[in-house]
Amino acid sequence: MAVDPLQGILDEIAAEARDSRERGKVADYIPELACIDPDQFAITVARPGQPTLTAGDAGVPFSIQSVSKLFMLALALGRLGDRLWTRVGREPSGQAFDSMLLLELERGRPRNPFINAGAIVTTDAVLEGASPREALGALLRFIRAAAGDEVIHINERVAASETATGHRNLALAHYLRSHGNLSNPPEMTLGTYFHQCAVEMSCAQLANAGLFLVGGPQAPRLVSQARIRRINALMMTCGHYDGSGDYAFRVGLPGKSGVGGGILSIVPGVASVAVWSPGLNHYGNSKLGTEAMEQLAARTGWSVFGPEGKSG
Amino acid sequence: MAVDPLQGILDEIAAEARDSRERGKVADYIPELACIDPDQFAITVARPGQPTLTAGDAGVPFSIQSVSKLFMLALALGRLGDRLWTRVGREPSGQAFDSMLLLELERGRPRNPFINAGAIVTTDAVLEGASPREALGALLRFIRAAAGDEVIHINERVAASETATGHRNLALAHYLRSHGNLSNPPEMTLGTYFHQCAVEMSCAQLANAGLFLVGGPQAPRLVSQARIRRINALMMTCGHYDGSGDYAFRVGLPGKSGVGGGILSIVPGVASVAVWSPGLNHYGNSKLGTEAMEQLAARTGWSVFGPEGKSG
Amino acid sequence: MAVDPLQGILDEIAAEARDSRERGKVADYIPELACIDPDQFAITVARPGQPTLTAGDAGVPFSIQSVSKLFMLALALGRLGDRLWTRVGREPSGQAFDSMLLLELERGRPRNPFINAGAIVTTDAVLEGASPREALGALLRFIRAAAGDEVIHINERVAASETATGHRNLALAHYLRSHGNLSNPPEMTLGTYFHQCAVEMSCAQLANAGLFLVGGPQAPRLVSQARIRRINALMMTCGHYDGSGDYAFRVGLPGKSGVGGGILSIVPGVASVAVWSPGLNHYGNSKLGTEAMEQLAARTGWSVFGPEGKSG
Amino acid sequence: MAVDPLQGILDEIAAEARDSRERGKVADYIPELACIDPDQFAITVARPGQPTLTAGDAGVPFSIQSVSKLFMLALALGRLGDRLWTRVGREPSGQAFDSMLLLELERGRPRNPFINAGAIVTTDAVLEGASPREALGALLRFIRAAAGDEVIHINERVAASETATGHRNLALAHYLRSHGNLSNPPEMTLGTYFHQCAVEMSCAQLANAGLFLVGGPQAPRLVSQARIRRINALMMTCGHYDGSGDYAFRVGLPGKSGVGGGILSIVPGVASVAVWSPGLNHYGNSKLGTEAMEQLAARTGWSVFGPEGKSG
Repeated sequence: MAVDPLQGILDEIAAEARDSRERGKVADYIPELACIDPDQFAITVARPGQPTLTAGDAGVPFSIQSVSKLFMLALALGRLGDRLWTRVGREPSGQAFDSMLLLELERGRPRNPFINAGAIVTTDAVLEGASPREALGALLRFIRAAAGDEVIHINERVAASETATGHRNLALAHYLRSHGNLSNPPEMTLGTYFHQCAVEMSCAQLANAGLFLVGGPQAPRLVSQARIRRINALMMTCGHYDGSGDYAFRVGLPGKSGVGGGILSIVPGVASVAVWSPGLNHYGNSKLGTEAMEQLAARTGWSVFGPEGKSG
Repeated sequence: MAVDPLQGILDEIAAEARDSRERGKVADYIPELACIDPDQFAITVARPGQPTLTAGDAGVPFSIQSVSKLFMLALALGRLGDRLWTRVGREPSGQAFDSMLLLELERGRPRNPFINAGAIVTTDAVLEGASPREALGALLRFIRAAAGDEVIHINERVAASETATGHRNLALAHYLRSHGNLSNPPEMTLGTYFHQCAVEMSCAQLANAGLFLVGGPQAPRLVSQARIRRINALMMTCGHYDGSGDYAFRVGLPGKSGVGGGILSIVPGVASVAVWSPGLNHYGNSKLGTEAMEQLAARTGWSVFGPEGKSG
Repeated sequence: MAVDPLQGILDEIAAEARDSRERGKVADYIPELACIDPDQFAITVARPGQPTLTAGDAGVPFSIQSVSKLFMLALALGRLGDRLWTRVGREPSGQAFDSMLLLELERGRPRNPFINAGAIVTTDAVLEGASPREALGALLRFIRAAAGDEVIHINERVAASETATGHRNLALAHYLRSHGNLSNPPEMTLGTYFHQCAVEMSCAQLANAGLFLVGGPQAPRLVSQARIRRINALMMTCGHYDGSGDYAFRVGLPGKSGVGGGILSIVPGVASVAVWSPGLNHYGNSKLGTEAMEQLAARTGWSVFGPEGKSG
Repeated sequence: MAVDPLQGILDEIAAEARDSRERGKVADYIPELACIDPDQFAITVARPGQPTLTAGDAGVPFSIQSVSKLFMLALALGRLGDRLWTRVGREPSGQAFDSMLLLELERGRPRNPFINAGAIVTTDAVLEGASPREALGALLRFIRAAAGDEVIHINERVAASETATGHRNLALAHYLRSHGNLSNPPEMTLGTYFHQCAVEMSCAQLANAGLFLVGGPQAPRLVSQARIRRINALMMTCGHYDGSGDYAFRVGLPGKSGVGGGILSIVPGVASVAVWSPGLNHYGNSKLGTEAMEQLAARTGWSVFGPEGKSG
């Protein structure tokens, strides 16, 4: 059987990443992240109805951190529908992930569900009809169903460390509460939020979990086609904080990054791609991961912005 | 010969627009725009190698205003290449089109080429190697070649009115100059800028002028395929000012709006779409135009974010 | 014995306040403040070595709230000296008392000790060498010694209400902590802070407690003369939040206001003046209290900015 | 005749300044300021009815720059009275002298008459009833009358240089105009503004020109006693831009600084003090000048915030 030429591209990208000297800076605000070996790199492409291709450390679990905001958003939209948008906006913030500046100017309504304040509101919205345990259970079920993998779990030590050091997020949560945009006690919403951020997945699992956003007849149907488009749109404009424009410019695909070094990107109708490398660029997004996605887009022609975009 | 079903969709959208009561507010900062009849509406779809379809007042010329930033950006990138990005960023601003707040916090480097400050810098960059007359001549040649229409011209009265009332833009230009990010005298750069904004086109002309961003074998080749993707990416994240996220969410296509009520949107590989209706929403983008694009995207399935995105 | 003509002025001012229709809006964020009768008004002038003069409800205790920041600042400077200024600035903020905007732009260093963030840092600094109980004990001893009145106390119910609703202050405290500018757990520092704000005093007690800032041979010597000047300077430029300039312009005396409706103002070398009326203006400062101080300054000639300033 | 002990203090301060190594950085945005010898220093104390005392280079003329805002404010208040305050506020800005941030957030109403935007509005207000020539003539007459010196004049070369390089001020003026808070063409108001900033005075002349703000029976009566207090209040809270709080804290006297290195400070009822040294601190205020004022206040006991404030 002929080898998929995409495998060659992934192998090349992984080899280049392995040799890279400038790997960015690993997040160090909790010991569980600070101690991650920065030399790791993985890339996985999952396609509906086709074999999943990987290169590098694609089986090593890592903390998905803010990539979880994507799954919680899908869950929240499923439960609340468009009511969610009364509490959070859909615009890029142009500010860092934990900025309070716009939140003050805009009186406690976060710009979008992918900055921390907006993700906290999203989690809080899910908690309106569920206990933290139920909400996290529903999130894990959603992710496991999406990935087709029942062993995906939450790293309790990471969640505990986040809780112990999360003063910036506590500031955001109390600020939201002071504006009436948090229904539950800040500690309760944040407890849930820190646990969702502590979900651990390998690159292969994450790529598969993203298949529900690819759409098309062979992809898993967890949300409607209209919602897929909207979530992808949010990933495109807001998925990389104040580096979202740069990611769209260089990669041309919707994506969501996490401080653990993971990025999930969607090629609508074609593939779900996960990359992972722990070192971060100055936006707080994976440095080698972003570069790998840029390479992958260039070599495959995958881009939502050009005519070859879906030809693979 | 069978009628193209797309024509039916356009006719329906035009009919709905004609009956719409809430038409937004026509820009009134210069008399030439203030006196435009708000009841007008037009939509045009141009596709490489296929007949151009229109509905409504598609032959009526209007002031393209900020849609011109798109053409000047293409011209600037052709002349300067990536050097342009040393002077202007590629991130959504999250602020109004004429805001000075981020410009101060970021020391005179505009966020992107589609907010006013960034467009002024882009025009200034083109003027490094050309007189205002030459730059405007090159711009008109570019637009005319793109549209395949030699009669497209600048409305001198609109340009004169802009010049007389453009204090906010003068503030931006002098501020840029004070940070060393304007090479020419503010009056000279702004004179050129106001003229470029005063280009007049009909909806049909504008849709055809956008074909060079569609890409593919039958589309006009004015810029490279890689640059097409990047320009489309900038349109997606920054093309509607602080309403860019909303447009991406609702329409799902790259687009650039102008205060004259025009919007140009690209369906990569498929079509260039222009809509026009003079009334604006609170972001300063065409109200009915945005709604028409949302309808068109919904009824055709056109979206860069979903699997049917390019099937038309 | 001849009646002091100042008594007549105070009586007139109290009579005018009694008849005033526009009394401002009582703070309503905790029930203990919301239920205060807005028709109350009091004014007291305390002078070293002279009888204390009062008019209105000068014996009614009220919650001094942010006026307490003054006493805690004096205590902190006594314990830390100029080291305090490494953690907090001395500039007016130009923003509301609980704004986070500048705190973000200036990376967690509050502008001055009289906005909430700065007062929280001040309290935190005192807690470096004392438990909350000890710090509050020292504060009460300081206030009691200054006022010459041993019954001044903390209203525990007010402190409890503040604690239950203080999300904006919790946001500030966690934000400070995230920048390393809070040494103690936010709940501990804020617990102390909420208790200090809940000190209750009558107008007469407050005026007497301010005598230590008047200076001169007959005034109580609790802090050095140089420090008196500096605290008065801070009250002048920062004592009324974003209404400090207006107070300086209209009244011309250093002053510190509280959301309970009290204001303490100093006439250097001459008098300590307390006013109290629960209704607040849009800055969050006592409406009638500010007007009464303006009248008192006009009728006595008291102002630090004119030649009769200290002639009484 | 016994020597005034104050003369000894001034001599000491001048000697210390002469030996100072850290002299700050001379303003270099126009050649006329950039070429000033940074080793110069002068101090002058003028007292109503007493001999003027000086030390250092007190006869050397320098560009008073923003100190002129004080005289134009007095002139504007004389012509418009409290109507001026509909166009400009009275609060410290907490931002640099040429910041646009608050101006945008507050929709074109400058915080106070001493930041550039506010001074431009003040000049514009005077121009409502006078041509630029008349306004500048009135300003010079005011200053000459205040100083009792008919030779004070405007340095035309400085005015021309300011005009050629004043892009930040042009940005402010056009921005004000775009908000309807500038009645005259920006070039006309700024032309006047740049000329007023180019008034040249020696330290001795400036101290004498400030006597009208000292008040008292022997001081020149150019404005009412009530207005003296208010102008002094504005100098205290806003006279040193975002270093106003620091100046109040360290010096304790109303003051107005200029980028030419001059500072005018008032000891109400006692004296008018001018200092000059061209090197600036990071706020843009004279470094040695501020230190000299701090020394003078400490050695004389002059401060509006303490009981010895006027005892000299």
